[in-house]
Amino acid sequence: MLSIGVDIGGTKVAAGVVTRSGEVLERVTVPSPTSSPGSVEDAIVDVVGQLRSTYAVGAVGIGAAGWVDSEQALVRFSPHLAWRNEPLRDSLRGRIDLPVIVDNDANAAAWAEYRFGAGRGARVMVCITLGTGIGGALVVDGRVFRGTYGMAGEWGHMTVVPDGERCACGNRGCWEQYASGNALVREANSLISSGAPQAMALAGAAGPDGITGPDVTALALAGDRPAVELLADVGAWLGRGMANLAAALDPELFVVGGGVSEAGGLLLKPAIDAYGRSLTGRGYRPVARIALAHFRNDAGLIGAADLARHAMSEPPGLMSVFWPWKRTKVRAAIRRRLRDTVE
Amino acid sequence: MLSIGVDIGGTKVAAGVVTRSGEVLERVTVPSPTSSPGSVEDAIVDVVGQLRSTYAVGAVGIGAAGWVDSEQALVRFSPHLAWRNEPLRDSLRGRIDLPVIVDNDANAAAWAEYRFGAGRGARVMVCITLGTGIGGALVVDGRVFRGTYGMAGEWGHMTVVPDGERCACGNRGCWEQYASGNALVREANSLISSGAPQAMALAGAAGPDGITGPDVTALALAGDRPAVELLADVGAWLGRGMANLAAALDPELFVVGGGVSEAGGLLLKPAIDAYGRSLTGRGYRPVARIALAHFRNDAGLIGAADLARHAMSEPPGLMSVFWPWKRTKVRAAIRRRLRDTVE
Repeated sequence: MLSIGVDIGGTKVAAGVVTRSGEVLERVTVPSPTSSPGSVEDAIVDVVGQLRSTYAVGAVGIGAAGWVDSEQALVRFSPHLAWRNEPLRDSLRGRIDLPVIVDNDANAAAWAEYRFGAGRGARVMVCITLGTGIGGALVVDGRVFRGTYGMAGEWGHMTVVPDGERCACGNRGCWEQYASGNALVREANSLISSGAPQAMALAGAAGPDGITGPDVTALALAGDRPAVELLADVGAWLGRGMANLAAALDPELFVVGGGVSEAGGLLLKPAIDAYGRSLTGRGYRPVARIALAHFRNDAGLIGAADLARHAMSEPPGLMSVFWPWKRTKVRAAIRRRLRDTVE
Repeated sequence: MLSIGVDIGGTKVAAGVVTRSGEVLERVTVPSPTSSPGSVEDAIVDVVGQLRSTYAVGAVGIGAAGWVDSEQALVRFSPHLAWRNEPLRDSLRGRIDLPVIVDNDANAAAWAEYRFGAGRGARVMVCITLGTGIGGALVVDGRVFRGTYGMAGEWGHMTVVPDGERCACGNRGCWEQYASGNALVREANSLISSGAPQAMALAGAAGPDGITGPDVTALALAGDRPAVELLADVGAWLGRGMANLAAALDPELFVVGGGVSEAGGLLLKPAIDAYGRSLTGRGYRPVARIALAHFRNDAGLIGAADLARHAMSEPPGLMSVFWPWKRTKVRAAIRRRLRDTVE
């Protein structure tokens, strides 16, 4: 069965037809209308219609930046998209004659990594998507952990510096104010404004609105030392935050993705150093692996498409391990266990 | 079936015979030998032997401060008990002719609350046990979440203040340095040492080694204002840390237990205030309930006993929902789902 994944970003709506092995057969992109919930719906219906004219698809998955409830139906709150308790799934079901699910974009990206990318086979995977902010998701035993109301995984809004930098969530000192694209840009512009002579190359790369994250990364990859240091500072905060998550969640694997991760080792090496220096109980515990994400821009749409397929093939709230071919293994495990423990 | 729970503390080993409804029929306590792993084992064998002379029991559960692997067998590291990769379960099985499991003491306490106490019925429960440090545990869908290697739930060692107070884990600024019995005592002694006239009552209650947590709580309950403020400071840090955990885990319920929680509202009221002020996305999300633990000193042994019973009645690593009486429900759910989604 083919399914369609739709990734709703701040600037564009990207959709694709995805196979059951995670391959994207065709893509469509339209600009993101942010004016009203209705116009975003129109854009989704539009891209789905275009793709369905060529491919027979069985389900549609939507990945959106925002808090989506654990039923994959309701967008409780989306900072960029003017959605407040928007029943997106049901609205779309009325307009698209296919099963639809809605999920958080970071959940969708993590799911793509778990199913087809860097996270394959991990029992407990923590995903960290470094964009303008931090997107987070936790996959445990082949399921996205959503929490009670669908809002788990918001690592980016854990406080790491009391009374620190202001965050758009209303608090101060959130992790995403120190380890994200926005943090990189803020610090780069601050260095440029300081007039420090080291910032010459950065100043030269800046436009009238200041410098961008990709500009800093490009300079760092070309060897500009202040740019390397700026990425290292972001990487160190990334590593400290990962150590916090390891204390809480003891994952097998961290997967780091998103635009900032394109700096590769310039980000990840300082992150791994800081992680190793900050991990509680270091020396007395196995250490989680840290990997770069496999997918770049396609993670959201591939994951959303596969989550939609997945929702069709398993009863909500139950483990895939229930399926008949696995039930035999379960019975064998039960028999072994009874034999071992009952006198 | 009756089972025995054993709670290994820093000063004593407490054991009890526990019914399947969580009632403690009889207790035995012996002093905690901390000199060698062998002598702790001897103490466990001793208390279990005493209780078995009167009651027919089917399993033994051990709750210990330390990192226990996810197989409930190996104590990887225990700060107070000289255990390093100690195969406690198998050693005890050789000496006690009963099924044995070992678990982290905070996991055991959380399980007691989930099964018989303040956490009954909660889908996602975060437990915070405030003793000298912070013990943590997460119960999801009727299972303790252990992470990959059994070390999840160490909330107390998430950094909340960069370069903050030194912690026995080797880091600085851990949450348990701000929201725990040790934090309360440190700040109280610091206030006394300052010579501030407000600290008169605290100074009067202090012994030659300084003041204790219960002393501060007793003074606060009697209305001493500096003692009330000290508890409020700890409570505020508790609330901020809970907001961090809500961002990550989106629980339905927080259960706060341990010795410091005996201050009741003097701790919890400031915690709830700080939580409400710090929760990311407040105003746009349902808010987790916060409850005081139901059990006091017995939580560890009741939980350990019930975890041992539980381990006997379900195959390791699988959900209790597998059992035959539930399988019927599962089949019905699968049928309903197929009917709904397949054309």
